[in-house]
Amino acid sequence: MSQTKESKIDVLVIGAGPAGLMCANGLAKAGVKVRIIDKKSNKISAGHADGIQPRTIEVLQSYGLADRLLRDACQLHMVAFWNPGPNGGIERTDKTRDVSVPTARYPFEATLHQGEIEQIFVDSMLDAGVAVDRPIYPFALEMSKDVAILADPNAHPIRVHLSSPDGQVDTEIVNAKFVVGADGAHSWVRKTLGIDMTGEQSEYIWGVVDMVPETDFPDIRYRCAIHSHNGSCMIIPREGDLIRLYIQLSDKDALDPSTGRVDRDKMSPEMLLEVARKSLYPYKIGTPKVFEWFTIYIIGQRVASRFSVQERVFIVGDACHTHSPKAGQGMNASMNDSHNLVWKITHALRGWADMSLLKTYEYERRKFAQDLIHFDKEFSALFSGKPRTEENQNGVSHEQFSQAFRTFGAFTSGIGIHYAESAIVNAKHQSVAKDLIIGQRIIPQILIRVADARPFELQDLLPADTRFKVLIFAGDITNVAQRMKVDKLGEEISKPESFLNKYSPGGEWKKVFDMLAIVSGKKEQVEYTMLPEFFRSHWSKVLIDDVDLTGRQGGKAYTSYGIGPSGAVIVVRPDGYVGFISPFDSIRDVDDYFASFMKVPS
Amino acid sequence: MSQTKESKIDVLVIGAGPAGLMCANGLAKAGVKVRIIDKKSNKISAGHADGIQPRTIEVLQSYGLADRLLRDACQLHMVAFWNPGPNGGIERTDKTRDVSVPTARYPFEATLHQGEIEQIFVDSMLDAGVAVDRPIYPFALEMSKDVAILADPNAHPIRVHLSSPDGQVDTEIVNAKFVVGADGAHSWVRKTLGIDMTGEQSEYIWGVVDMVPETDFPDIRYRCAIHSHNGSCMIIPREGDLIRLYIQLSDKDALDPSTGRVDRDKMSPEMLLEVARKSLYPYKIGTPKVFEWFTIYIIGQRVASRFSVQERVFIVGDACHTHSPKAGQGMNASMNDSHNLVWKITHALRGWADMSLLKTYEYERRKFAQDLIHFDKEFSALFSGKPRTEENQNGVSHEQFSQAFRTFGAFTSGIGIHYAESAIVNAKHQSVAKDLIIGQRIIPQILIRVADARPFELQDLLPADTRFKVLIFAGDITNVAQRMKVDKLGEEISKPESFLNKYSPGGEWKKVFDMLAIVSGKKEQVEYTMLPEFFRSHWSKVLIDDVDLTGRQGGKAYTSYGIGPSGAVIVVRPDGYVGFISPFDSIRDVDDYFASFMKVPS
Repeated sequence: MSQTKESKIDVLVIGAGPAGLMCANGLAKAGVKVRIIDKKSNKISAGHADGIQPRTIEVLQSYGLADRLLRDACQLHMVAFWNPGPNGGIERTDKTRDVSVPTARYPFEATLHQGEIEQIFVDSMLDAGVAVDRPIYPFALEMSKDVAILADPNAHPIRVHLSSPDGQVDTEIVNAKFVVGADGAHSWVRKTLGIDMTGEQSEYIWGVVDMVPETDFPDIRYRCAIHSHNGSCMIIPREGDLIRLYIQLSDKDALDPSTGRVDRDKMSPEMLLEVARKSLYPYKIGTPKVFEWFTIYIIGQRVASRFSVQERVFIVGDACHTHSPKAGQGMNASMNDSHNLVWKITHALRGWADMSLLKTYEYERRKFAQDLIHFDKEFSALFSGKPRTEENQNGVSHEQFSQAFRTFGAFTSGIGIHYAESAIVNAKHQSVAKDLIIGQRIIPQILIRVADARPFELQDLLPADTRFKVLIFAGDITNVAQRMKVDKLGEEISKPESFLNKYSPGGEWKKVFDMLAIVSGKKEQVEYTMLPEFFRSHWSKVLIDDVDLTGRQGGKAYTSYGIGPSGAVIVVRPDGYVGFISPFDSIRDVDDYFASFMKVPS
Repeated sequence: MSQTKESKIDVLVIGAGPAGLMCANGLAKAGVKVRIIDKKSNKISAGHADGIQPRTIEVLQSYGLADRLLRDACQLHMVAFWNPGPNGGIERTDKTRDVSVPTARYPFEATLHQGEIEQIFVDSMLDAGVAVDRPIYPFALEMSKDVAILADPNAHPIRVHLSSPDGQVDTEIVNAKFVVGADGAHSWVRKTLGIDMTGEQSEYIWGVVDMVPETDFPDIRYRCAIHSHNGSCMIIPREGDLIRLYIQLSDKDALDPSTGRVDRDKMSPEMLLEVARKSLYPYKIGTPKVFEWFTIYIIGQRVASRFSVQERVFIVGDACHTHSPKAGQGMNASMNDSHNLVWKITHALRGWADMSLLKTYEYERRKFAQDLIHFDKEFSALFSGKPRTEENQNGVSHEQFSQAFRTFGAFTSGIGIHYAESAIVNAKHQSVAKDLIIGQRIIPQILIRVADARPFELQDLLPADTRFKVLIFAGDITNVAQRMKVDKLGEEISKPESFLNKYSPGGEWKKVFDMLAIVSGKKEQVEYTMLPEFFRSHWSKVLIDDVDLTGRQGGKAYTSYGIGPSGAVIVVRPDGYVGFISPFDSIRDVDDYFASFMKVPS
């Protein structure tokens, strides 16, 4: 009788798509012992998801990964709306900014082949010594029912049985503290846990084709929403000269009449292009020598009933939500699930946070997924619906569609995501910075580092390094009265019972927190040595809200956040979302905020 | 009798400092067969040159190398002037932008350890399959005297004998088409060629020390020029927490009385710091646990009498000019020598340009080196001179010094470099774009790509890829009269006898040239398909001088270049310098420009 190999790991990630890789990379960079496995022998090489929304670029940047994305990706700045025109053709009704959210740091969408995006994570993880184990199949998962074990972050309550692709079972049993199922729409983890998907299939059938076009259509490098006399299609420009066409299909084009299911064999890319050609009339589009990729799908809009079992096994990405790809949300929602989860698992594993912190993952991300489905239903119905024409006065008008496009802009960009109140989102003192919404991501700002007058994007000073960021908006420290308040604040925060010391192992607060002081005033009149020493643990930690030396940027943080001369203390979560705001004289409320989910180190 | 190995190469670069590496990398990326050798076993690990001026960052960016520099380097945005104050101490007289040239794309200096800068090139070259051969000593150089051979770019008129460091002579003889001596101030190549250095040694002795300071001096992260009652010093912040101190020394501190030469053994970093401490009084600076590096030098200001022999062997960098390091020019001048030379050698080797093109290297760079020495003398004298105080009314006043600092700003930033008229700099039609100076580098501009509304920095569309860039400022093409002129221009340029076809091997003009069309007007009203097909060889080649979709940037090219509604044709050299400007109706003058140094392919 052969002995099955047993191994131990902190976190086992199952599935190496964008959600799984984001998770494994984040954990690896945080120093967590993580293993990531995948069934496939190789990463995908064409097609699949490819849209990266503005907020997702910000998130990638917070992991130091945006440069490469931006170097290689296509940028979508403009969207054009085309509608039925005279003589059976189409005419442009409008063109406008693709991303109109005013606070967007990256005011565009990016598109890049999914395999390339995955490679960015793979290369990054490799620096931390983690590679994808493939091909490996999980085939059984057991979890302890012992309440004490489940409550202990150091226990390994989960046993996952692995097999090799040749079908030889039980090649290995992994004992994991946590498991993350990132194994896609047909998630084995979800099914094994018996989690339902709720929602339904829509009636809309779409085809997708990736190709390099030869065309006289002038907007071929814009994102285009085209409603014609002869059906609808969407153009998504991609890296290099590639474009993706989303093409609405009729039942007879795509369904197998005997089963009512989509029959991919009924369609070829040539046939899809022929349908698109009718929409684009009177513009012409040639048949390329090669089609990069194509597929057909029916929009399914479903959300998992739970995102976790006992907060020890989680599902992320397509495993917990599916929706239409046309709004470019899939990969973004997936990666942001993992971004939300990584720091929570890390804090729980380190024993810094209470295990209850992990409940906020499902709380925050399931609500988001539901909002996403809601949006997707409205948007898909508008997009897939017949356009209004002279003959069809009940159709969708351009005004309706473009209004919806704008209304949903904040949501589709990812920037409007607003996590509801919980232990980690507490809006008690929202009024102290009324325009910096608690529960939303920190709004980008250019600030000037006092010691060397170098401009920085605030977001770049708040990397996804698992630390909470405490921003001290100190006001005008050349004003004696305000300076005294800042001194007093420093005394309060440096007390042993203050959050900064109380929740830091061995008093080493820089492991758990980073602290930046942001003063108002003119850079010519402020020196970093003017601040109390406590607030300048390093010369780089003092910033001023002033224009930079070129006069081109900066100086808008206090006003755009709505912070008055009395200043404010702002707590930014490790994932870049505002968790708490406090006036100076309620600094003990910051202690209470952290007390609601942090643990005093033993 | 053993046979010495013989090898052949297009270009042999001797010396792998910044000048040699810039040269080898540029040639390697251009596809030239290049070999680079160095005497040292390893690259340097501390100290030495480290300042990167704004224009040099632009140049590195044109090779795709600026991102890494900017990621790792320290940025100097502010300069502070300190002068003798009350009670024997110093006081800040002024602080201002370190780089005040309005057209600077990177409005700061960067500092980074020379070894790191070298590594950027080493890694880049490796992608092109070239690595530094070390340690290898050259010990003899012979050159053919045959005029016909010297005139043939495909001949190998130079034989360089190499030896290994164990003294075993003639391990190899390299037969090279061209040799570049980048072997430093004590250049073996220069001495072997019998080229003199002209100029003299100054009377000023300086010490340099690199360290992490502990200090209450508030401007420790600014570039500082400090003139005190007790001597002068300069602070240059560096990467991480490092700073460099330049400290003026007296003869007795630094000279060996028996020889009158600098005696490095007379000084220690502790002693240098002690001298600096006197200048910084009343501010304090602690003694660090370790000193990163230190040295002592006398400013020598010399230029080689020739930069080349027969335009087959060239010298670049410190081999042809030495000067004081305090203005941060050394490495910049060196790298820009190579940048100037690389495309010229490449074009000569390919048989595209006449060998006479190579004469412009010395013509352009020797004049620059002389200007540099001129500047350096004035600046060093001002800096090393005694400051004006109550007791010393003949000393250098702050106004004098700061005035000089500003006057020389354009020069020290590298942005003001102006190559004089020659075959490749022809100012005949300067009036057509009166503010874009022919002989200077192309001024940065944000332009919008018409097809996808994406903003681009024009400089990024003109990479150092050895091609000439032809910029067609087409004006308002929605105006019928102007559009007709653009059509006519396209017809003229596409003729067989036009430069575009005449100087392109096999008519493949995209090998030698790139062509961009830049229209004026509003992006909402222009489509890239509106331009004659000839001017849009690819959808990416049409740009518009308009603000971007955020309204934050762009739309200033025509006005800042001084181009009117009739448009202009601008020829940018492969190194990013404006070579020629023509109005539409003198397009045959562009033919003449190229005829003066290009060859009709055989």
